[in-house]
Amino acid sequence: MALLMQEDTRFGLDRKIRLLGPVRLDSGAEFVPVDIAYETYGALNADKSNAILICHALTGDQYVASTHPMTGKDGWWTRMVGPGKPIDPARHCIISINVMGSCMGSSGPASIDPTTGAAYAMGFPVITIPDMVRAQALLLDHLGIETLEAVVGGSMGGMQALSWAALYPERVKSAVVIASTARHSAQNIAFHEVGRQAIMADPRWNNGAYYGHEAPSSGLAVARMAAHITYLSEAGLTEKFGRRLQNRDAKSFGFDADFQVESYLRYQGLSFVDRFDANSYLYITRAMDYFDLAEPHDGVLAKAFARTKTRFCLISFDSDWLYPTAESRRIVHALNAAGAAVSFVELSSPFGHDAFLLEAPEMNRIVDGFLRAGEQS
Amino acid sequence: MALLMQEDTRFGLDRKIRLLGPVRLDSGAEFVPVDIAYETYGALNADKSNAILICHALTGDQYVASTHPMTGKDGWWTRMVGPGKPIDPARHCIISINVMGSCMGSSGPASIDPTTGAAYAMGFPVITIPDMVRAQALLLDHLGIETLEAVVGGSMGGMQALSWAALYPERVKSAVVIASTARHSAQNIAFHEVGRQAIMADPRWNNGAYYGHEAPSSGLAVARMAAHITYLSEAGLTEKFGRRLQNRDAKSFGFDADFQVESYLRYQGLSFVDRFDANSYLYITRAMDYFDLAEPHDGVLAKAFARTKTRFCLISFDSDWLYPTAESRRIVHALNAAGAAVSFVELSSPFGHDAFLLEAPEMNRIVDGFLRAGEQS
Repeated sequence: MALLMQEDTRFGLDRKIRLLGPVRLDSGAEFVPVDIAYETYGALNADKSNAILICHALTGDQYVASTHPMTGKDGWWTRMVGPGKPIDPARHCIISINVMGSCMGSSGPASIDPTTGAAYAMGFPVITIPDMVRAQALLLDHLGIETLEAVVGGSMGGMQALSWAALYPERVKSAVVIASTARHSAQNIAFHEVGRQAIMADPRWNNGAYYGHEAPSSGLAVARMAAHITYLSEAGLTEKFGRRLQNRDAKSFGFDADFQVESYLRYQGLSFVDRFDANSYLYITRAMDYFDLAEPHDGVLAKAFARTKTRFCLISFDSDWLYPTAESRRIVHALNAAGAAVSFVELSSPFGHDAFLLEAPEMNRIVDGFLRAGEQS
Repeated sequence: MALLMQEDTRFGLDRKIRLLGPVRLDSGAEFVPVDIAYETYGALNADKSNAILICHALTGDQYVASTHPMTGKDGWWTRMVGPGKPIDPARHCIISINVMGSCMGSSGPASIDPTTGAAYAMGFPVITIPDMVRAQALLLDHLGIETLEAVVGGSMGGMQALSWAALYPERVKSAVVIASTARHSAQNIAFHEVGRQAIMADPRWNNGAYYGHEAPSSGLAVARMAAHITYLSEAGLTEKFGRRLQNRDAKSFGFDADFQVESYLRYQGLSFVDRFDANSYLYITRAMDYFDLAEPHDGVLAKAFARTKTRFCLISFDSDWLYPTAESRRIVHALNAAGAAVSFVELSSPFGHDAFLLEAPEMNRIVDGFLRAGEQS
């Protein structure tokens, strides 16, 4: 992927740009230069008022509605983004940015540090969700987009949407926050720590300096497996797999994947390592664990939105135990206290946290209605 | 620890015996010889009617009320077992047996296979919860105990108690089943599979043949960490740790254990590997995953208790999401359908699955009342 600096290639697919930055990081450091990989769908209108930023989740990427170059799979949110969908390139200029710290083209631990000519590895700075948002704002500056019609995200994407509204209240007209939270709980941190320890326990991790050698795939696969359980509900797992065996009713009395759920989890782990960098997994989970929007405001979440002009739409799913409805409700209470316009719905789904990525007609109707109302105002 | 065959040493502490067996295993194999390590507290009365068997959980052992020889810690259930407690050596002959497959003296993968002179390792047969119970029955035969006043267990101990009542209805007068289930759910299996994969991903695991070499401690620690999260409730973790940092309010912006919950989990992982064998963890989790009391009865749990004469006491905890109350209720319904005498209480606790190991005066009152009523009948 070439570094594209030409103005006429700012919009379209497979964009990557190097911005001089700097991004001022929450750690106090400054980061330069900043590579940003992104996709756009649809054209920016004359008054530049139709831009919608889609923020991706932990292991997501910029390929929200276009084919993933490594897996060959469709974009990860074609149910929400595309012709005739709530977020529609015929109406919107849709921008999707690979987050800083990730591994699909934006600056991350696998990127080459221009000062050394080698991968940053663990020399990459520890970043936060607001840091990711600051890097995204640099790209919007470059694209000449001052105000977003909306910023939309599920899970970690929702954390970015909330951070956008908190950091740049004048730049965000609407925010859609799905299956998300304003802070990582002790249990959230605990699960991520298991994943990190699994990666770091893999001798091939080698303190992060594995580029050019075998990657710590075993550890990363275990991390993915543990995380994947948190994306599904207990009832959903029971419905999908129950205690069904791979090989009809013959238990192997061994340690192969006897149960379908074991085989499914192993597949999730193994297929993940082909498309994701273990160090990125460390950095992004760290950013999520550090996330607590209220923390810089004496623990009072409403203060994070004191200057807000954004209208908000929050959606949670009743079977999501990773970021349960109570976390969305806490955000709604804070937004109410801050005097923000906010609508909130808890949807029913058997699919747990992953519900936001699946077919959910109600979710689509809500997002569609919310965005159209914003366009008319 | 010597093999004790003398009749006069059958009762007391630090007992270990080799029985000729065989144990007929659910896999179809026969296992001989069977080493059984156990502890007893209190004396068997003249008519041998006061024996209570305590069954331990996944990582438990026979040291229910005596000092653990490796950790130097008190027994794991001194809140329930001991002078003045519901299970009292002044009144009961208390027997606690290390389960087959474990690593505290009973036959397990770390034991020496007498036919080869080397550790069984993965040559140890895959066993089930009923297999563990069959081995325990051999010991009771040896001790001359035909009928148990009660069999008592929490978590996997409860699975054994249920299996005792199902396999040997005439030998079990009362059964106390706490925080347990009659089958492992898809989510239960999934978490265990993560743990097994973490162990097997550790190169030092070496297909189980690590005895005499370095053990796969990193993998086992990760397995323990993942499992430990399931033992605690989300609310309990929040109450105990929240987002509190190790180092007051200074985030390290690195990958050390910044949050107290990370440090706690790491400690749980590291301290576990000193006292537990990784292969035993594989075998016992497999036994738990295979556990489904209804399976041999066309999926009808009540049929497992068709011949029951046992009276049952079931206790669940409202914050236990590993074996939630619904699983206890399912057992109660089956016991009702089988015409068994059963009492059931859901207790309130913030501590999740681990609640049964902690101070729980209500639980103690219930067990005490249930056992005393049984003694008077």
